[in-house]
Amino acid sequence: VGGVFIRARELGLYLGALPTGKFNAITDVPGVTVGHVSLIQGHGKLIPGQGPVRTGVTAILPHSGNLYTQKCPAAVFPYNGFGKSIGMMYVEELGICENPILITNTLSIAAALEGGIDWVLKHNPGVGISERTPNIMVFECDDGYLNDIRGRHLKQRDVWQAIATATGGHVPEGNVGAGVGMSTFAYKAGAGTSSRIVKNSLGTWTLGVFMVCNFGEREDLTIKGVPFGRMFPEKEAPLIGNSNITIIATDAPLTCPELKQLAKRPELGLSRVGGISRWGSGDIDMAFSNYPWTHPNAKSQITDSAKFLNPLIEAVVDASEEACLNALFQAETMVGVDNHVREKIPVKQIIAHLRNANRLSPFV
Amino acid sequence: VGGVFIRARELGLYLGALPTGKFNAITDVPGVTVGHVSLIQGHGKLIPGQGPVRTGVTAILPHSGNLYTQKCPAAVFPYNGFGKSIGMMYVEELGICENPILITNTLSIAAALEGGIDWVLKHNPGVGISERTPNIMVFECDDGYLNDIRGRHLKQRDVWQAIATATGGHVPEGNVGAGVGMSTFAYKAGAGTSSRIVKNSLGTWTLGVFMVCNFGEREDLTIKGVPFGRMFPEKEAPLIGNSNITIIATDAPLTCPELKQLAKRPELGLSRVGGISRWGSGDIDMAFSNYPWTHPNAKSQITDSAKFLNPLIEAVVDASEEACLNALFQAETMVGVDNHVREKIPVKQIIAHLRNANRLSPFV
Amino acid sequence: VGGVFIRARELGLYLGALPTGKFNAITDVPGVTVGHVSLIQGHGKLIPGQGPVRTGVTAILPHSGNLYTQKCPAAVFPYNGFGKSIGMMYVEELGICENPILITNTLSIAAALEGGIDWVLKHNPGVGISERTPNIMVFECDDGYLNDIRGRHLKQRDVWQAIATATGGHVPEGNVGAGVGMSTFAYKAGAGTSSRIVKNSLGTWTLGVFMVCNFGEREDLTIKGVPFGRMFPEKEAPLIGNSNITIIATDAPLTCPELKQLAKRPELGLSRVGGISRWGSGDIDMAFSNYPWTHPNAKSQITDSAKFLNPLIEAVVDASEEACLNALFQAETMVGVDNHVREKIPVKQIIAHLRNANRLSPFV
Amino acid sequence: VGGVFIRARELGLYLGALPTGKFNAITDVPGVTVGHVSLIQGHGKLIPGQGPVRTGVTAILPHSGNLYTQKCPAAVFPYNGFGKSIGMMYVEELGICENPILITNTLSIAAALEGGIDWVLKHNPGVGISERTPNIMVFECDDGYLNDIRGRHLKQRDVWQAIATATGGHVPEGNVGAGVGMSTFAYKAGAGTSSRIVKNSLGTWTLGVFMVCNFGEREDLTIKGVPFGRMFPEKEAPLIGNSNITIIATDAPLTCPELKQLAKRPELGLSRVGGISRWGSGDIDMAFSNYPWTHPNAKSQITDSAKFLNPLIEAVVDASEEACLNALFQAETMVGVDNHVREKIPVKQIIAHLRNANRLSPFV
Repeated sequence: VGGVFIRARELGLYLGALPTGKFNAITDVPGVTVGHVSLIQGHGKLIPGQGPVRTGVTAILPHSGNLYTQKCPAAVFPYNGFGKSIGMMYVEELGICENPILITNTLSIAAALEGGIDWVLKHNPGVGISERTPNIMVFECDDGYLNDIRGRHLKQRDVWQAIATATGGHVPEGNVGAGVGMSTFAYKAGAGTSSRIVKNSLGTWTLGVFMVCNFGEREDLTIKGVPFGRMFPEKEAPLIGNSNITIIATDAPLTCPELKQLAKRPELGLSRVGGISRWGSGDIDMAFSNYPWTHPNAKSQITDSAKFLNPLIEAVVDASEEACLNALFQAETMVGVDNHVREKIPVKQIIAHLRNANRLSPFV
Repeated sequence: VGGVFIRARELGLYLGALPTGKFNAITDVPGVTVGHVSLIQGHGKLIPGQGPVRTGVTAILPHSGNLYTQKCPAAVFPYNGFGKSIGMMYVEELGICENPILITNTLSIAAALEGGIDWVLKHNPGVGISERTPNIMVFECDDGYLNDIRGRHLKQRDVWQAIATATGGHVPEGNVGAGVGMSTFAYKAGAGTSSRIVKNSLGTWTLGVFMVCNFGEREDLTIKGVPFGRMFPEKEAPLIGNSNITIIATDAPLTCPELKQLAKRPELGLSRVGGISRWGSGDIDMAFSNYPWTHPNAKSQITDSAKFLNPLIEAVVDASEEACLNALFQAETMVGVDNHVREKIPVKQIIAHLRNANRLSPFV
Repeated sequence: VGGVFIRARELGLYLGALPTGKFNAITDVPGVTVGHVSLIQGHGKLIPGQGPVRTGVTAILPHSGNLYTQKCPAAVFPYNGFGKSIGMMYVEELGICENPILITNTLSIAAALEGGIDWVLKHNPGVGISERTPNIMVFECDDGYLNDIRGRHLKQRDVWQAIATATGGHVPEGNVGAGVGMSTFAYKAGAGTSSRIVKNSLGTWTLGVFMVCNFGEREDLTIKGVPFGRMFPEKEAPLIGNSNITIIATDAPLTCPELKQLAKRPELGLSRVGGISRWGSGDIDMAFSNYPWTHPNAKSQITDSAKFLNPLIEAVVDASEEACLNALFQAETMVGVDNHVREKIPVKQIIAHLRNANRLSPFV
Repeated sequence: VGGVFIRARELGLYLGALPTGKFNAITDVPGVTVGHVSLIQGHGKLIPGQGPVRTGVTAILPHSGNLYTQKCPAAVFPYNGFGKSIGMMYVEELGICENPILITNTLSIAAALEGGIDWVLKHNPGVGISERTPNIMVFECDDGYLNDIRGRHLKQRDVWQAIATATGGHVPEGNVGAGVGMSTFAYKAGAGTSSRIVKNSLGTWTLGVFMVCNFGEREDLTIKGVPFGRMFPEKEAPLIGNSNITIIATDAPLTCPELKQLAKRPELGLSRVGGISRWGSGDIDMAFSNYPWTHPNAKSQITDSAKFLNPLIEAVVDASEEACLNALFQAETMVGVDNHVREKIPVKQIIAHLRNANRLSPFV
């Protein structure tokens, strides 16, 4: 316990009753890939523009085809709209995701946006000439406690690299990609992911969640109902910046209103680890389906949505809780600007406490 | 344990760190009153139109003055819009609550609406002649598992009585008012309330929550992180109807966007007892402030909202969790139509389990 | 000129370039039917509760099957949410219309709602027992200047009759149904309808608009750019109450986001007759498609929406303008409560002026 | 007629009955300033990345103080959300504008965003260290018919210059700033502005509109009800790209819901010149008030909003129509990429036609 590859489930924490996919990751949804670029450089005193640098970018690609021409139905939900994420309005209006989804720090959104535009232009020579301009989604969290966020160290080439290196299979978690400098409950957190396999009235589907975890005050932290945050009070007070991003992918055939149902649920999972979506945290959610659009039974679905949607809703809540715990457990202690420290969550004590309380089997 | 007046807190369940008001009820907010009318009649086989009757209506009055002329700033949030509540659009557009807030069953909304209109007309003789028409808010949940809901037994006089008898102080919970026929996690539930005292950058304020609890499947039930729902599986399957209504009152001086922040948070409290806001449940939230409008320090508030709003957000989440548990613990087993039974939640076992697990002190 | 059956187009007013359907009415959309019940009784002094009565109800049925089991995709848009219409939230969340659409006066919404619920219960014996409860849409405008609106003279039987007598073909306009007591620009107005035939990338479709016109001050009235309102100033000032309802029907296969596009456009047509959507007017729009759900080419539609949607958008704007003018031209002078008079719009002078100005051919 | 400084009003076109401010510009609102940077370079064949360049940026500053610390109440309304504008979510959630408002072309939004962030960081050294990160609003239209939009020629220094040179008084219109490459009804258009002086129940106020006009097909164009678009059909068909941005400023003391009322109305003005808000056009509106927050009579305002808001609503509609006509009349013919031509609107013929039709006095 304490190493790099310990995830919540390996620690005995079972969240919900549904089975996970093979990698317990968003990439379990066939076709979805994830790419991280991590920027970690320098130590000590903050010199804005120079460092230290503790940030990165994560790219999520809904499928391996041309995203701009093979658009996916999608929905967004700004549960807590105190954020500067880009591209929500278009998705709200049209219900379409048409590009790589990018996540980075709050002040690097312009670089990520430029990189995303650049990437689409490169792969679609008609855009802006004979075709319409693209909508790029850039989500953000504030990593300014550890990172020289004013320095805006992320460059377009980093965005390109994140997109170009996106792969399926195992997804690195913790201090990687957009998660490098992020914190949750004043512990080090970052990237986290989880998935569920769902059977409903139309078939068997995969749903995956990817999260950049960056919210909450220490006192909020709760796991399996145990208020660990109050057991381990934070020594140093000053918290600036948060925001939490959740991306939901599925291969289930869903309409926009149905995807919006899913996009509304991640905060219910975060609530189970103590999140109250504090003021000042842009807790933003997005969901897309890469099913090839219209299911032959789509009409029957409308009168059967309880059986159809509820298992997917359950999957979103459970996978969101687990992705957050994965982000916490997979992250390592980090020292950032001005020697600010975000400690690793005390895994051993927490697991010991939960084991003593008999909370580590699936049914407790 | 097992009687009528046992509330969560008396059982040793402490939710959150903030103190409650005197009555631990929405009526702790000065000026707010609550009135219940309960309709319970008949037994045995369902004969639509005749009974058995297991329903009621609850009225909440924001202050004791003329509500139509002394309007309150307000906000609504349909977290899960699968519901038939009335009057949301106007509040969303104008940010004003101007009448008694009514809650009843889904098919009695017309009677409640008519009663509410009638009441306003009576007290405002110029309405519809020289003054504009009123917006009545009627919220609803489906009590059809126990109640002859098709019979629409609620009458206008019941609505009047609920409004006319609304009082401050102690608020009955469980099988009363709109809560008479409601269930949660396939246990008997109904009305629940709780309050918190909050200190923030502008002063000391009271925030109260009133809830009609009617959601969830048995397997969802979780208290203090313990999955009781899976310990006590439901014997009979068929669940039709749910929806959950949460009304938030405060005397803190809040603008519409700020009240909307509060209206977005009750489901985070419900998530802590296992709620996932299933498809088909209209989980609707409303918040109002009866502070006499503009606080002299309103301008400073805008740059200080973290200190100002976060304690109120915390209060909403904690009080929502507690109101739901109060609804469950205060409700009694009820037999309804076709001898459908909603059992009382097994308080003794649950408390015993929590005590054994050392979860009954404020800090665990 | 001046009689009952003169419509804008017969007067030489051509709105837009698209052809109309056979009846130039919402009923040109195959399957759509409209039923009016008009309540006109008494004269002279207003005695609230007794009269005079100048009101009614209109029912629109999307198709002739069981609306509750064969739901239609739908969207609502509260352009100006100062209104008390019922049932919007559910449509916004689920994108479904599942019942007759009802329109009446602001204080009779409870009666209309009760009638609508009653009708659905009658035709669906499982509702509230083994099936979920229905969402009824009731739209409203304020006819209190002419009608004893406080008297709430509309009864459930009137609602039933409107539904039961709904037919296709010719749709009565002006002082009928929900339009009986309504006014626009301080002239008598009421019900109006119009339709367009549209060819787009997927085929040929019909789009129809039905409107209850009840908005604006005299000074706003403009036809073909001529500010008639300022030419014919209103003698008596007091205007209380307005709100304008627009229902859009089409047989084109549209998703919810696409229907919302349509629901956003009627006010653009109303603007052309001078409407500025004044504060206090609930200008509410709804659109539904009765196409049997998923078109085989739905996937291609997503990349071709300009060609697909723009003709339908044009149809909405033009038909909305024409429906409003039809409501004005088809209405007759009415004397209501306290001998309040709403004069018929001076058709002869307007047409003469437009003819002199050479504005009566299709291309000017 | 035909020169650079002819505005609609100088041509005899009076829109509405309210008086204008001194400059008939958004800068009539005390404190509001506007800065344009225009980029025009090269001729002939489009070589993406090289040119020809026909674009620019416009900055609008709500007041002359530190915008980040002295935030303004604000509202946004995406009437037609097919656009890539940035920063809407935060304003929707918090109701605050806190930075210069920027407008540019669709593919230069990243540069504008970076420039905006840079400007705020420079003037607020604590941002990202001890203070929260800023929300930058960047609005966009597509100028790709004339401009090498793929070349993204706008640089951060251009954004800085637009902000730094923003001034009150006369506001250049037509082919300037963000308006350089924009077209409306397939005529050259661009920047336009107008203002109104409004008296309401609380005092006398100024309301100004600034617009980047870039929408519509030729056939839509209508002025004073005359369908000029059909008189002057477009020779060449291909139109790619549009979107229309409207910024509303006022010194009236308005709450967020009231500002949203204003933000909803510009399209009613655009409808009067023939706009139907076609699919693919991001028609986005924003309104802010720079009144020093809470008016002493704010409480009375709530029961008097008709008298208070209606004159402001009228001002928005009339000023939006006039700003659009100013954009059209002030623009000059422009030759852009691949020798694409956007002709100047034929002012002489239009004015002659309107004069013959007796439509050039204020009351016709």
